[in-house]
Amino acid sequence: MELTVAQLAERIGAEVRGDGSVVVERCAGLEEAGPRDVSFLANPRYARLLTQTRAGAVIASAQDVAGAAGRTFLVAKDPYYAFRQAMVQLHGFRRHPEAGVSPQAFVHPTAQVGPGCCIQPMVYIAEGARVGRRCVIYPHCYIGPGAVLGEDCVLFPNVTVYDGCVLGDRVTLHAGCVIGQDGFGYATHGGEHHKIPQVGNAVVEDDVEMGAGCTVNRATVGSTRIGKGTKFSDLVAIGHGAVVGQHNLLVAQVGIAGSVKTGDYVVIGGQAGLAGHLKIGDLVQIAAKAGVVNDLPAKGQYGGQPAVPLTQLKRSVLAQARLPEMIQELRELRQQVARLEAELKAKPAG
Amino acid sequence: MELTVAQLAERIGAEVRGDGSVVVERCAGLEEAGPRDVSFLANPRYARLLTQTRAGAVIASAQDVAGAAGRTFLVAKDPYYAFRQAMVQLHGFRRHPEAGVSPQAFVHPTAQVGPGCCIQPMVYIAEGARVGRRCVIYPHCYIGPGAVLGEDCVLFPNVTVYDGCVLGDRVTLHAGCVIGQDGFGYATHGGEHHKIPQVGNAVVEDDVEMGAGCTVNRATVGSTRIGKGTKFSDLVAIGHGAVVGQHNLLVAQVGIAGSVKTGDYVVIGGQAGLAGHLKIGDLVQIAAKAGVVNDLPAKGQYGGQPAVPLTQLKRSVLAQARLPEMIQELRELRQQVARLEAELKAKPAG
Amino acid sequence: MELTVAQLAERIGAEVRGDGSVVVERCAGLEEAGPRDVSFLANPRYARLLTQTRAGAVIASAQDVAGAAGRTFLVAKDPYYAFRQAMVQLHGFRRHPEAGVSPQAFVHPTAQVGPGCCIQPMVYIAEGARVGRRCVIYPHCYIGPGAVLGEDCVLFPNVTVYDGCVLGDRVTLHAGCVIGQDGFGYATHGGEHHKIPQVGNAVVEDDVEMGAGCTVNRATVGSTRIGKGTKFSDLVAIGHGAVVGQHNLLVAQVGIAGSVKTGDYVVIGGQAGLAGHLKIGDLVQIAAKAGVVNDLPAKGQYGGQPAVPLTQLKRSVLAQARLPEMIQELRELRQQVARLEAELKAKPAG
Repeated sequence: MELTVAQLAERIGAEVRGDGSVVVERCAGLEEAGPRDVSFLANPRYARLLTQTRAGAVIASAQDVAGAAGRTFLVAKDPYYAFRQAMVQLHGFRRHPEAGVSPQAFVHPTAQVGPGCCIQPMVYIAEGARVGRRCVIYPHCYIGPGAVLGEDCVLFPNVTVYDGCVLGDRVTLHAGCVIGQDGFGYATHGGEHHKIPQVGNAVVEDDVEMGAGCTVNRATVGSTRIGKGTKFSDLVAIGHGAVVGQHNLLVAQVGIAGSVKTGDYVVIGGQAGLAGHLKIGDLVQIAAKAGVVNDLPAKGQYGGQPAVPLTQLKRSVLAQARLPEMIQELRELRQQVARLEAELKAKPAG
Repeated sequence: MELTVAQLAERIGAEVRGDGSVVVERCAGLEEAGPRDVSFLANPRYARLLTQTRAGAVIASAQDVAGAAGRTFLVAKDPYYAFRQAMVQLHGFRRHPEAGVSPQAFVHPTAQVGPGCCIQPMVYIAEGARVGRRCVIYPHCYIGPGAVLGEDCVLFPNVTVYDGCVLGDRVTLHAGCVIGQDGFGYATHGGEHHKIPQVGNAVVEDDVEMGAGCTVNRATVGSTRIGKGTKFSDLVAIGHGAVVGQHNLLVAQVGIAGSVKTGDYVVIGGQAGLAGHLKIGDLVQIAAKAGVVNDLPAKGQYGGQPAVPLTQLKRSVLAQARLPEMIQELRELRQQVARLEAELKAKPAG
Repeated sequence: MELTVAQLAERIGAEVRGDGSVVVERCAGLEEAGPRDVSFLANPRYARLLTQTRAGAVIASAQDVAGAAGRTFLVAKDPYYAFRQAMVQLHGFRRHPEAGVSPQAFVHPTAQVGPGCCIQPMVYIAEGARVGRRCVIYPHCYIGPGAVLGEDCVLFPNVTVYDGCVLGDRVTLHAGCVIGQDGFGYATHGGEHHKIPQVGNAVVEDDVEMGAGCTVNRATVGSTRIGKGTKFSDLVAIGHGAVVGQHNLLVAQVGIAGSVKTGDYVVIGGQAGLAGHLKIGDLVQIAAKAGVVNDLPAKGQYGGQPAVPLTQLKRSVLAQARLPEMIQELRELRQQVARLEAELKAKPAG
């Protein structure tokens, strides 16, 4: 879509600094952008790129703009959010196929599909399932018996929602996600692992989005729960009975074991793992690859295996880098002390 | 289902301590349970909850019951197994759809489907495949050419079983599992990675259950094998030619490289990884996130990267926590020794 | 297939040492091989097996053959590649079903399917998609609107290719792979994570093969790219805007965050992770489980968390193993120095 910088500024709540008549039609990174692109500077670390970029206009904060002349800016308080708004204005979101229930889908006679839904070919909707208004369900999805979807959900291909699981409104699940498979519950007795019936479900609250191939176990009893507004990247695994709070961000390949509870606004880096039954406070940030084995109070930053406060981890990493040197120092010191001891013996007694 | 505590006790082989006429209908955790729930205490660590729980009855061991009065107990030698039995009695397992082959499934004319199977819509069963009696195959599963399923298998949606692979009896595969894709075998030559035909298969023995999204490579030649009674959680990856023993437990996101052999009753924690060609003894326990790079003899407990015996790992973690302090001590000691040396020089010779 | 060793030698470019009239029909490992099997020795570490193997013939290098008598060899400069050639000659590759578009597939009227393709039942090919000649697409695959496949691609069951994504020629995707789901891009503002439209795509170049369940995000703008000849094992996750170079090898469960660029011939071990925006040079080798947080220059070998050069990591692991001992030594040294200090005080002044 084509817009002048002035038009775009108005739509995204930014202020023009420079030539508002410049026409832009796309968004791009500072390094890739050309004259008809709008770019952004969200991290002052990349400020040097401002002098090199070919972008027609750049979204930035007032202070980052201060030093740069002869360029058209869109000044915003939160440049990254303003860039997001520009993406929405210039590019918009994916258009889904039109509403309608494909005759090549299987919809059980007892299932309910709300008005405005797009149920594509080869979708399977089981007995007693309920799909709210305007949901889009791509081919090869499976909605199990009694499962419930709210309004405006989007399920990309090959998603499985097990029996009795619940999705809120505006839930987006990318291809291959699995919601509500049986939890990993066995009682070992007489040399065998006896399966414990997993009779709970999984609940995914409003505005959750999950990347491809995420798996959320159903609870043994009660519900596994993914809180409102939380976002997962790809291949995230959530154990049975876990309760992930609201507005969490879980990066790819994170694993959360059974019965963990995370607070709100928790951020967990890629490939991190949380052991079972832990309680993680609000706003905690966990670094990529961390292995969390203790409860964590609110607001801290943690990393390492086992996870410790990030400041402690950094100290520890630095100390470990010094280790080989320390071994050498310790050896020299022992020799020095042995020498001193010998010399001391040779001195006359008091 | 409603039962008196006395009735339940009889069915699960427990002994009533207290009022056997109390009616229970569900299972629940000690903290969540109400008066019509039966709960359990399997870990003495949670014994304090016995005084607080609202559960109608609690399954526990004789010694854990000893101190607690005025409450109805179901005393069992193995409380966790007794709880499992109570789950089976009160809740039972998931009911699958009725037997029958959907006309919307694709079953190749040369494929065999045993009596009592439930083949749901959009299942694909290829040339020469054989499915044993009473199997349940959910929508969007693919059973490749010549693949063989034993009796009473359950394949949840979107499961893929490649050509020539074999499942035993009572194998349960949760949504998105893949059995028998090509192993990661290439010969690098002339600057390119040349694919090695993967002509073996994958064999999953009786009573194996896998969580969602697990992937088991076929062998280059011979068979990748998952031993009888072994259970996987979600997103577990098994390399080509690996032989996982009987009654193993593999937690989510475990990765086992090619040609590894594990013994029986091995337990592997979440996100742990085993390098290729290793031999792991019976009863070995491997901690979450461990990186195993050596053979491990039977019965030990291991953790860390690279994995070492757990006692050694704990010592090492404690020692590392002391490192910054040690650096300080070493510095002080060097100063002290330097001072001593100077003082010693100043002393008269012997 | 049956061949004499002499015939096989000619086809794979090896030289016979011993009895060329021996008939072989299969390939097998040294330990499993029988008299009608050809085996190989690619790693001198296993040379001792040469005296024990029952293989009819063994592929090996000239120097490995030197010591072993009374056995039939196929001498090759690159024994592993020669073994691969023998696998191709004796076993060949999987035969796919015959060409043809199944009437049970859904092919949108505007989609193009090239001659010689095998489009199996329950495949979905969306509006405007283009599939090149001789592609094989297994059941339950989804080819999104405007997606493009080159020639001779093979997509195993349950693969999803999102709208606008591009596969080159001879791309093989194993079951459950997902190409082009939305990247993990949100602008956090006013307490919510606002989705950034992901309007780029994912491009998978010629001769790429991916194991089961791999996930490749589409770029926010521009393209995520997997370079020609690169091979993934299973459950690999690639972030949005990443550019993986040519002829890389990524082992199972590797995670590469957004905007990373890897050079050519990079090898990444299982469960390793690369943080966002890094640049990895050509020929770099990254050990299993490594956590890479810095750019890496060409050709080095790295491992650990955070990743360091492998030589440094080995030193560091050895040093850490000495840590408990060092703590003890340090304690003793302090006592010794304290004793010396006391003794020194007792000596007469100079």
